[in-house]
Amino acid sequence: MGALTTQPADSIAAWDEEEIIRRVVQNLSDAAPAFPEGPGGDCAHLPNTETAGWRISTVDSVILGRHFDAACSGYLAGIKLVNRNLSDLAAAGATPSDGLLSLVMGGEISQAWLLDFAHGVGRAAKAAGLKVVGGDVAQGPAQSFMATLAVQGFAQRVLTRRQAQSGDVVFVTGQLGGSRYGHHLTFTPRLAEGAWLGSQSEVTACTDISDGFSKDLTNLMGPQLNLVLDERMLPVSEAAMALSKADGIPALEHALQDGEDYELLWTAHPSRADWIASQFRLKFPQTTLTCLGTLQVGTGQIISQATGKTLGKKGFKHFG
Amino acid sequence: MGALTTQPADSIAAWDEEEIIRRVVQNLSDAAPAFPEGPGGDCAHLPNTETAGWRISTVDSVILGRHFDAACSGYLAGIKLVNRNLSDLAAAGATPSDGLLSLVMGGEISQAWLLDFAHGVGRAAKAAGLKVVGGDVAQGPAQSFMATLAVQGFAQRVLTRRQAQSGDVVFVTGQLGGSRYGHHLTFTPRLAEGAWLGSQSEVTACTDISDGFSKDLTNLMGPQLNLVLDERMLPVSEAAMALSKADGIPALEHALQDGEDYELLWTAHPSRADWIASQFRLKFPQTTLTCLGTLQVGTGQIISQATGKTLGKKGFKHFG
Repeated sequence: MGALTTQPADSIAAWDEEEIIRRVVQNLSDAAPAFPEGPGGDCAHLPNTETAGWRISTVDSVILGRHFDAACSGYLAGIKLVNRNLSDLAAAGATPSDGLLSLVMGGEISQAWLLDFAHGVGRAAKAAGLKVVGGDVAQGPAQSFMATLAVQGFAQRVLTRRQAQSGDVVFVTGQLGGSRYGHHLTFTPRLAEGAWLGSQSEVTACTDISDGFSKDLTNLMGPQLNLVLDERMLPVSEAAMALSKADGIPALEHALQDGEDYELLWTAHPSRADWIASQFRLKFPQTTLTCLGTLQVGTGQIISQATGKTLGKKGFKHFG
Repeated sequence: MGALTTQPADSIAAWDEEEIIRRVVQNLSDAAPAFPEGPGGDCAHLPNTETAGWRISTVDSVILGRHFDAACSGYLAGIKLVNRNLSDLAAAGATPSDGLLSLVMGGEISQAWLLDFAHGVGRAAKAAGLKVVGGDVAQGPAQSFMATLAVQGFAQRVLTRRQAQSGDVVFVTGQLGGSRYGHHLTFTPRLAEGAWLGSQSEVTACTDISDGFSKDLTNLMGPQLNLVLDERMLPVSEAAMALSKADGIPALEHALQDGEDYELLWTAHPSRADWIASQFRLKFPQTTLTCLGTLQVGTGQIISQATGKTLGKKGFKHFG
């Protein structure tokens, strides 16, 4: 069952706006609280009782043909929408609270696919404690589907990019590269790891890897630090190796450049880096943790220890 | 200057994602706070210091070809995006706090138009005290432009639909109908009026008119109330009369059915309705206020006092 249908009776064009909203909300299931906290009015009304020091706010979209293809199940596309937002909250060390779901789509979208999408959104949201409190539906260009989720989370202390200093040690979770082989749809956002990292004062900066390791590390370091990297240390995924066999591009290149790893890239104060790493491994034995080296004063470059050359910063570009 | 350009050098396809974000943020001007409260990271980090009882959350989009046409200035389209969200906050009696701006667009969008759009968003946001704290840019179908804004506001007490009771008196601000003649781009959201209504315990329910008076009143009343309406009381706009001359549909029909009035439709407890109306008129002498009658037990109908017939509930349908 694909996203698009040629049968008008099976398409969302057979429904009016109320019908679409009613059925989407139904399929969000218990991730959508009751009115007035949840869908049903022009606004959601949330009791403002959270005492954490920071509200963390972020938004991300999935677009048919860009973040998933027409053969992708609605369920996985919906899960991806939620989890790519949750990955941003994870990198900030935040606990998910609530989200707004906005759908813009053409009349050719399949009813069944849309409900499967809502089901996926509801499942992934529920699994992470995210409430889908409202949203919006509008008609877009023919054969298009765009879903945007704006989420709010809370944190006592927040992790950001750009707090790392010279001497800090760089860590990355999981494996890198080849996400397009499936990981981009099936990954689990590192919420527990991010919340724990946020609670450790020795952790100095954190980001998730969405645009590619090189680009996200460059953003994390900012323009006044370098990382001299022993490329052999990079945790290259099996998918990156399989992709390398298929396209002839070195697996290491895939690990450096591919987007959508949704792993956490973070730094720790040097005096406590070993301790933090051992605590992390005790706390999250299922999550691979790799130490990649030490930041030094520089100009925002990743430099190969083997060749002395700057490693590419291409990453994923959306336009141009 | 239209939204689309045939000159690649003048289009956003000549920019990469960073360039688009940098320039949009620049044009949001002082509506966008500095990192990490504002744009620049994967999340915005907002000090969680608001003590109001409720956080109010809502989302709305504007889509090229649907909510504005390709000849519309970016500036007005940007203002519309902000103000249609603020109108929802106004109806909840909320004060705007922060918003996330998500842009999905094809490469043919004009650079100058996009920056004008961001300028409009920034101006309207700044005027209402709304901070644009983050967002997201992604490539969409050719020649498309969709902008989604998710906003958070705060209120001590919230107004919702569905709190009205039999006997309550119905009021509406401003004039109705013919919004497509320009009002839909240039209206001012009724934030001050909404905040004041929210602070009055005698006000029992409120909504803004976005889908059309009939449909929004039906939503406000719910399925167990009726309004017997003297249609002659309806405040018909000059634009509705002009439109009636052009299309032959009675101006009253336009006032009942046209969408995007962005006026406030609210109810007050009968014992205090006269007092509330007089206080409102003292407080907001520039804002027309019309009393439309009294709710009674029923089945969710608007009934013509003159003919006894049910007045249409068509409103604005997005699909089908």
